[in-house]
Amino acid sequence: MIDLTQLLAVLAGFMGILMGFANIPQAVKIYKKRSAKDVSELTYGVLAVGYFVLLLYSILLDNVALIVTNLFGLLGVVLVLSGIIRYEKKGIRHRGI
Amino acid sequence: MIDLTQLLAVLAGFMGILMGFANIPQAVKIYKKRSAKDVSELTYGVLAVGYFVLLLYSILLDNVALIVTNLFGLLGVVLVLSGIIRYEKKGIRHRGI
Repeated sequence: MIDLTQLLAVLAGFMGILMGFANIPQAVKIYKKRSAKDVSELTYGVLAVGYFVLLLYSILLDNVALIVTNLFGLLGVVLVLSGIIRYEKKGIRHRGI
Repeated sequence: MIDLTQLLAVLAGFMGILMGFANIPQAVKIYKKRSAKDVSELTYGVLAVGYFVLLLYSILLDNVALIVTNLFGLLGVVLVLSGIIRYEKKGIRHRGI
């Protein structure tokens, strides 16, 4: 019989990787336009701290599917956040939230 | 002695709620502008399916911190996604990714 928890763990890890990759279009847009004026640094700051805490928690739980999910989430969000910080530092107008 | 896993569980649940709320500025922007042309429905579609799978997995794991995190994440993402679908259906130009 198929173990539902293990099946969902694989599916969750797979979706976690996709969710991390889902940040790439946003990051590409910022780097192409060299502008992040419509993107919220507060939102991405919260997401980065959140994924970091969830990653630590997943490591403590020793759950591979959750570690993968939160690692890819953190990488994706940091990619966007570094674009925001980079083009904000260059003095291009940035609206906050 | 403080149980590190329990402490991180509380912190993770709290950050999970904040991460869900982090979608609100994006949703507000769509509903105010009545436009979602720069927002990717593919990104939010992937996030919605991902949070749904992670929510099912958290329920199977019976982990309250993860259930809270993925429930608020799903609600936040669905809020943005319904804005995208609503203003796309009204025939306002929408660029995809």
